[in-house]
Amino acid sequence: MKNFTFENPVKIVFGKDTIAQLPQLLSKNEKIMLTFGGGSAKKNGVYDQVVKALEGYDYTEFWGIEANPRFETLMKGVEAARKENVTFLLAIGGGSVIDGTKFISKAIKYNGDEYELLTNRKIITEYTPLATIVTLAATGSEMNNGAVITVERTHEKLVMSGDFPKFSILDPEILYSLPKFQIACGIIDTFIHTLEQYLTKTGQSRLMDRWAEGILQSLVEIAPELMKPEPSYDAMADFMLSATMALNGFISMGIEEDWVTHMIGHEITAYTNLTHGVTLAIVMPRVMEVLKEEKGDKILQYGERVWGITSGTLEERIHNTIACTREFFESLDIRTSLSGNDIPESVSGKIVERWRSRKWKLGENRNVDADLVRIILDKCK
Amino acid sequence: MKNFTFENPVKIVFGKDTIAQLPQLLSKNEKIMLTFGGGSAKKNGVYDQVVKALEGYDYTEFWGIEANPRFETLMKGVEAARKENVTFLLAIGGGSVIDGTKFISKAIKYNGDEYELLTNRKIITEYTPLATIVTLAATGSEMNNGAVITVERTHEKLVMSGDFPKFSILDPEILYSLPKFQIACGIIDTFIHTLEQYLTKTGQSRLMDRWAEGILQSLVEIAPELMKPEPSYDAMADFMLSATMALNGFISMGIEEDWVTHMIGHEITAYTNLTHGVTLAIVMPRVMEVLKEEKGDKILQYGERVWGITSGTLEERIHNTIACTREFFESLDIRTSLSGNDIPESVSGKIVERWRSRKWKLGENRNVDADLVRIILDKCK
Repeated sequence: MKNFTFENPVKIVFGKDTIAQLPQLLSKNEKIMLTFGGGSAKKNGVYDQVVKALEGYDYTEFWGIEANPRFETLMKGVEAARKENVTFLLAIGGGSVIDGTKFISKAIKYNGDEYELLTNRKIITEYTPLATIVTLAATGSEMNNGAVITVERTHEKLVMSGDFPKFSILDPEILYSLPKFQIACGIIDTFIHTLEQYLTKTGQSRLMDRWAEGILQSLVEIAPELMKPEPSYDAMADFMLSATMALNGFISMGIEEDWVTHMIGHEITAYTNLTHGVTLAIVMPRVMEVLKEEKGDKILQYGERVWGITSGTLEERIHNTIACTREFFESLDIRTSLSGNDIPESVSGKIVERWRSRKWKLGENRNVDADLVRIILDKCK
Repeated sequence: MKNFTFENPVKIVFGKDTIAQLPQLLSKNEKIMLTFGGGSAKKNGVYDQVVKALEGYDYTEFWGIEANPRFETLMKGVEAARKENVTFLLAIGGGSVIDGTKFISKAIKYNGDEYELLTNRKIITEYTPLATIVTLAATGSEMNNGAVITVERTHEKLVMSGDFPKFSILDPEILYSLPKFQIACGIIDTFIHTLEQYLTKTGQSRLMDRWAEGILQSLVEIAPELMKPEPSYDAMADFMLSATMALNGFISMGIEEDWVTHMIGHEITAYTNLTHGVTLAIVMPRVMEVLKEEKGDKILQYGERVWGITSGTLEERIHNTIACTREFFESLDIRTSLSGNDIPESVSGKIVERWRSRKWKLGENRNVDADLVRIILDKCK
């Protein structure tokens, strides 16, 4: 096990009707800006619950943070917050709204070129505190300090670190209004966040392995229930909890992490706007295939513990494990190829080119360079 | 899943040579009191490491917090801290030193009768901040806000809630100096903390079940290695991590908990001073046996996933699972009966009497009354 430091100060308020607890969590002395996506919060009743809970509070609203939140959009939020002297941000939405709000929180008090907050990790700014109400289980952003921001002008999807939310409210009942496509993408996003932290080498930490496998096993068990028209509350609650636990540091103590699938997936989205979860479902099985030499032992362990694959040659077991993974994503009505999602072949070339020009060598062994990405993307066709 | 609130602000600094990071964690403006147990910190080199790291700091020392830390001893620490105007407490030891320091932290600024801090949960005091350096993996106290304090005068072992440590330093290499008896008790304490949160009813949260089982499976796997003269660093690290993760709230989100074994174990220790881990190893198998009706489904799941018990009648599987649990404790050279530890029979009578006089009804179903405790203790003979 590697040395590590762990700290996660986010307060989680989880369960039915928990939005009503807002007054116990928020001071009336704050000048609050609520941040939203495109309008689903008004359809699913969340907006009304928030307005009711915030009676007597001083707040303004900022609407329109899109999926894959854009720097250009968020800067309007930053300007609005500055103008209104906002002291507290409350993000109400999924990962995009929360990530976007983390950027706003980081930018409000920054005097320089805000684009640099996405490219220069050394800049230290004073955060404006934020909290979240989660309406989509997927990214885990509600319990970490990371964010992914798209820059439209440059077709970049950039990873930024910001502040942890002060608290996050998670009511599984809100998830009932989501289209099944978003549930499917949330399951896949959670599954692959876990694999990114798990699928490296064996023998680093038995406990972290078990906890990662615990999330994977839970998702495999509840996915069929979640895809039904009316999933049970307990399945929805375990889904929402799993999504939060998959990216809050709890399963990555003292171990190596990969994240190549995410980096390739971000690139696909940056050029095509294809939904994040779909890009991951396309890329992950091919990353496993291309890197099966170095990840083989862990793939075998994953195949045995999550999919019950224990017979056949090692080669066959690895092959079957990758097939199970892909079939799982397909069982959620997600197409796991680029062509199946109408992505033109030219996109792969652009990704490889940028990977080469930036001299990226990623993955736990820092060996996934442009040539390997070419091979991975060719298999994604 | 039940509604729940989760928050754990403790910063964990984990790994080799991490005591040297103290200067990055502690301000030189504090007036610090270091708290210790009986002297092992001087033998195992921890004291020297701390003194070196704290060069230039203003600190005093308080020695002599015993196993099952006593109110009477701790009050001397409170008085010393008041006299020296201490602003920060650094506990260096195992669960007893940490628990005791949580009491000191709670009592320093309290003007009333400090005994009431152990009996009246409604009293609010201003905590003096504390941090820990862990020298014994077992109680998980380094990452929670609970403490158990013994009152010598009344033969009581009382559970108190206090402050979370600001940070906890965990260096697995420190554990190499521990006698195997303490390693064994640490494994058992961790195992039973997990069972207390897990062994209630099925179907509350798949994820929390998997995470609890992950700790149990890890402990079963590494225990033989830990009992060797020179365990591997990775096994020691997984042991230390498991102990911390078993009682920090990570495996108890949204679920019912039991804690009857601990309550009976605390009573045994209060009357006899028998080591905490040993009392748990005696009591838990009998709690499972006596409550097998209501805990049966979960015992079956535990038996299958942790011990691989899948054949036989349900009754046989439950029987074998309890036997495996007891044999596991015995394999660590712990005797799992009261007589095997020279505890006189009269002790059981005193425990039942106090249980009856306080009208306790404990466990997840609030049905473990004095009569049931009598039956459990009779089986412990």
